[in-house]
Amino acid sequence: MTGNPRPTRGDYVVWRQATTRWADDDVYGHMNNARYFELIDTAVNVHLAEAVGGDIRQLPAIGVVAEVSCRYFREVGYPEPIDMGLVVDHIGNSSVVYRIGLFQGDGDEAAAEGRFVHVYIDNESRSVVQIPQQIRDAVSPLRR
Amino acid sequence: MTGNPRPTRGDYVVWRQATTRWADDDVYGHMNNARYFELIDTAVNVHLAEAVGGDIRQLPAIGVVAEVSCRYFREVGYPEPIDMGLVVDHIGNSSVVYRIGLFQGDGDEAAAEGRFVHVYIDNESRSVVQIPQQIRDAVSPLRR
Amino acid sequence: MTGNPRPTRGDYVVWRQATTRWADDDVYGHMNNARYFELIDTAVNVHLAEAVGGDIRQLPAIGVVAEVSCRYFREVGYPEPIDMGLVVDHIGNSSVVYRIGLFQGDGDEAAAEGRFVHVYIDNESRSVVQIPQQIRDAVSPLRR
Amino acid sequence: MTGNPRPTRGDYVVWRQATTRWADDDVYGHMNNARYFELIDTAVNVHLAEAVGGDIRQLPAIGVVAEVSCRYFREVGYPEPIDMGLVVDHIGNSSVVYRIGLFQGDGDEAAAEGRFVHVYIDNESRSVVQIPQQIRDAVSPLRR
Repeated sequence: MTGNPRPTRGDYVVWRQATTRWADDDVYGHMNNARYFELIDTAVNVHLAEAVGGDIRQLPAIGVVAEVSCRYFREVGYPEPIDMGLVVDHIGNSSVVYRIGLFQGDGDEAAAEGRFVHVYIDNESRSVVQIPQQIRDAVSPLRR
Repeated sequence: MTGNPRPTRGDYVVWRQATTRWADDDVYGHMNNARYFELIDTAVNVHLAEAVGGDIRQLPAIGVVAEVSCRYFREVGYPEPIDMGLVVDHIGNSSVVYRIGLFQGDGDEAAAEGRFVHVYIDNESRSVVQIPQQIRDAVSPLRR
Repeated sequence: MTGNPRPTRGDYVVWRQATTRWADDDVYGHMNNARYFELIDTAVNVHLAEAVGGDIRQLPAIGVVAEVSCRYFREVGYPEPIDMGLVVDHIGNSSVVYRIGLFQGDGDEAAAEGRFVHVYIDNESRSVVQIPQQIRDAVSPLRR
Repeated sequence: MTGNPRPTRGDYVVWRQATTRWADDDVYGHMNNARYFELIDTAVNVHLAEAVGGDIRQLPAIGVVAEVSCRYFREVGYPEPIDMGLVVDHIGNSSVVYRIGLFQGDGDEAAAEGRFVHVYIDNESRSVVQIPQQIRDAVSPLRR
């Protein structure tokens, strides 16, 4: 649809695994498109929490989602787990752009790819601020 | 982020309203990014079901989501309802591209805008097929 | 299963309506059992918020769910809305027991009935406390 | 609340693990009560699918949820995984009653316990039928 090639496992830097749930599948017997974003969101936040070593929700600046998208190449669904590969495309002054590849089973080609844009805002005033240094240190190793 | 201007109510053709749920809000006290896609998805499918006048899930060709995205401009959340405006950007041979504006409260500017790409596949073989005529008739009036 | 008769519309005191979502239906084409609890939860919390006239999540004592259940009598699902009737069965020192009837369409018999037990805890210490007077005033009129 | 003692790990027969998701937590920073039922549901269905060795959704008789409940003892939430213990309390002619203990971290006491009642219905007529022999064989070893 977009002309971008279908991503493969080698495109990603770090990996997580998520279990699937019966309720993930909609009436068509595959994972509902909204559910993918629960996984995409988790892949990013788990990495940040582990790399920062604390509760990122308590930092003075929090990452809010400015834009997110997903391209779907092949059906996935309950009951097998999903492998999630994470790579950072861009680190700006106040935003980070991630791509998250979702895989189910052994194939090398992604079943779906999410693109996720975090913008950092002050936890109280909600105005846009610079990426906290702890976050910058956590995402820099995810560039390729 | 994308350079596209923030959409307003006048950009959309038909409207639906969705109630929000306590569980829509995540730990930040606003609607979780994945939840928007439950609304976007519903706005499209309710229109199709009503315009076609039957259960679109039983048609020989079904629309599966090839790509979806959302830009977030302003927080929304429980408990107020969400107004969803729908417009069709493109009708191809086998795909339809929708934009869905989400509004909460009286403002004229969208709180978020989704972009939703349906591709039609055969309900059994799952190969890409032409848009069924009933669907084409249902979406043509949504162009501006 | 429990010997309790199937409830009817006359069993409830106040009413709310919730819209359904495409993603509510699971692979069996009906609302997934977990989704009912999103509606049950919302019926209670919307009533409290409106009766209290403010954000109940900011009160010094918050209601947390100690126990919840649902009996399913008839399938419901997307796309029709759900009518939710609310009644209070019991008001204790620190807990409130609600029943929530879910109806879809015109029938007099509930499609499902939830039972929902809120226990009040201090928002900071998380120890059990007395029901705040504002909440007590909000739920007393829901007794039959 | 019910007088039943708080269950411990030794009360359950088989175990599964589920990952948690960022969106599982609601505004109170703990797993929303409805989300537990996504895990409870999955614990039962994954066991059945593996024990039966096929897609239980395609059997002539399917298990639909007649009644479900959960008692909450301690908060759980994102990001740690959840251990789910499964035990069968009752096997009738057409129904199976499960209890599912949810644990997070090392403690021996359950954070929550679900009770889940499946009733078997004909996949087409939706009338109540006897438990299929394959299902009976799959759940009998879960009795204590």
